[in-house]
Amino acid sequence: MQIVILAGGVGGSRFILGARRAYPDALITVVGNTADDITLHGLRICPDLDTIMYTLGRGSDAERGWGRRDESWQVMSELNAYAAEPTWFSLGDRDLGTHLVRTQLLNAGYPLSEVTAALTTRWLADEPQLRLLPMTDDRVETHITIADEQVPGGRRAVHFQEYWVRLHAEPAALDITLVGRESARPAPGVTEAIRGADLILVAPSNPVVSIGPILQVVGIRQALQDTAAPVVGFAGILGGAPVLGMAHRLLPAIGVAVDAAAVGRHYGARTAGGVLDVWAMDTADAGSADRVREAGLRPVVTDLIMTDPEATAAFIGYAVKSGTA
Amino acid sequence: MQIVILAGGVGGSRFILGARRAYPDALITVVGNTADDITLHGLRICPDLDTIMYTLGRGSDAERGWGRRDESWQVMSELNAYAAEPTWFSLGDRDLGTHLVRTQLLNAGYPLSEVTAALTTRWLADEPQLRLLPMTDDRVETHITIADEQVPGGRRAVHFQEYWVRLHAEPAALDITLVGRESARPAPGVTEAIRGADLILVAPSNPVVSIGPILQVVGIRQALQDTAAPVVGFAGILGGAPVLGMAHRLLPAIGVAVDAAAVGRHYGARTAGGVLDVWAMDTADAGSADRVREAGLRPVVTDLIMTDPEATAAFIGYAVKSGTA
Repeated sequence: MQIVILAGGVGGSRFILGARRAYPDALITVVGNTADDITLHGLRICPDLDTIMYTLGRGSDAERGWGRRDESWQVMSELNAYAAEPTWFSLGDRDLGTHLVRTQLLNAGYPLSEVTAALTTRWLADEPQLRLLPMTDDRVETHITIADEQVPGGRRAVHFQEYWVRLHAEPAALDITLVGRESARPAPGVTEAIRGADLILVAPSNPVVSIGPILQVVGIRQALQDTAAPVVGFAGILGGAPVLGMAHRLLPAIGVAVDAAAVGRHYGARTAGGVLDVWAMDTADAGSADRVREAGLRPVVTDLIMTDPEATAAFIGYAVKSGTA
Repeated sequence: MQIVILAGGVGGSRFILGARRAYPDALITVVGNTADDITLHGLRICPDLDTIMYTLGRGSDAERGWGRRDESWQVMSELNAYAAEPTWFSLGDRDLGTHLVRTQLLNAGYPLSEVTAALTTRWLADEPQLRLLPMTDDRVETHITIADEQVPGGRRAVHFQEYWVRLHAEPAALDITLVGRESARPAPGVTEAIRGADLILVAPSNPVVSIGPILQVVGIRQALQDTAAPVVGFAGILGGAPVLGMAHRLLPAIGVAVDAAAVGRHYGARTAGGVLDVWAMDTADAGSADRVREAGLRPVVTDLIMTDPEATAAFIGYAVKSGTA
């Protein structure tokens, strides 16, 4: 059985751990979001891919949810002592090792997909059935437009990381732009995996800045419409609030209500030009199943809290079974 | 009073600490060797400049003699876990902060001299009378030719760092080449400082790979011959062996005996086309003062062990006073 999972970082990783447990014999291809990627201090940083690598490779900090276990911050304290901007993005020493290797390989001319394959030979050595692909080898970045009275026009765009890490998502997101979208193409293997899959899972990651960018890469949406595999999506909004992160700060900017059914309808049914067949929502949102059904999606209502891989595996298995029955 | 010091790394730093104590009111310009510089893991590393910065800025590891105090090696352990070559050059986490900042600035187009000035705003903040200049802004590297039966011709050249750190200076040095010498020019301020100085000190650093490269930068030797200031050199070879490092492994490759007088004669008297007026040797080498005098140099014999800055200051002051009397 071949499964493709579209995923962001922290929530995506937990979801993958569950899917692996639900389908222990499947070949799983994870298509990771790269629109959060950023170059800082000359290093190319891919937060979502790294979070997935570290989590799957048992190297992540489970409490923090991102970054490496047993992390230290000596390099960062030096960068701060030199007043090297930006100081708002903390790079751990262990994490930085990954960025150094990646940057070296990218500068040597290797595409991100090959670099990711090289890095995962370390992290996924014990997971031969798992493959991690970046959504694209091209540079694509989510920029958020915020109000700023200091600049002409009163608005400016900041990189997603600056919005999220430095500004703590406090300013209202007025607009969201995927810079580089027009020229980005899916990384080798991405659309092939989608077209050849037996099952496609859309993780309960941020619909605006994690799953959204993946769907915007030219060719990926078409592959999702073409594939014979059922596409099952999972709501990250439970009872009107995101389980993790800050989708509630970004959904308004794309005109979508902070509501599981609204997100499902935003993804849309494949029969109506969208990307999903099934939309799994938490029991807290049982009341809006009809609104999902109206949009041509098959709703599944179950407990979506990713307490541990076992609980996650259980709801994935249930949603797939009942949604594709 | 304006002093110029030509210096390598570890020995050079100790010498500078002594000179600063000997001449507390002088403006001291240090011209540092950059032929040991190397690019590893995409980072530009300047070991001699860094050793000087850290030592003068009280950030160095006094026991090890190089690198940072309170150093850790988390990034390096990650690079090793990725099997990222080379693994033989250990980069400390704190040290790496410097390399990241330097590499960023160099990649942004700033010359090494400006980058060094930027880095020293941190390290030499309490030393306004001290200025550190790289010998050149151009890329110059010492390569050592060694025998290698595995390659056609039976010889190959390795970067100085590979010879020193990886090979522990074990293979005989058959030849020494300063790659990039032809096109290298002195960094801004170097020849101006030499020509405008009241006193020039040549530190007891390695004559082959520390002082040698500085003297080979086109224009520096001429400035030393032109300056009205006395040029006082200090032997790093005491009783036929280097105090620090491995000059004894390299002097044979340039046809110079491992002997203080021979090194003094190699530098040569300014009156005979060389660069020195005075050559200070340790009391262990008192017997060869005549050989130094024969070459047109004024020998000074004193205790040259750099036990601490006070002892170093004492012999510098004595050598300058008695040599230039």
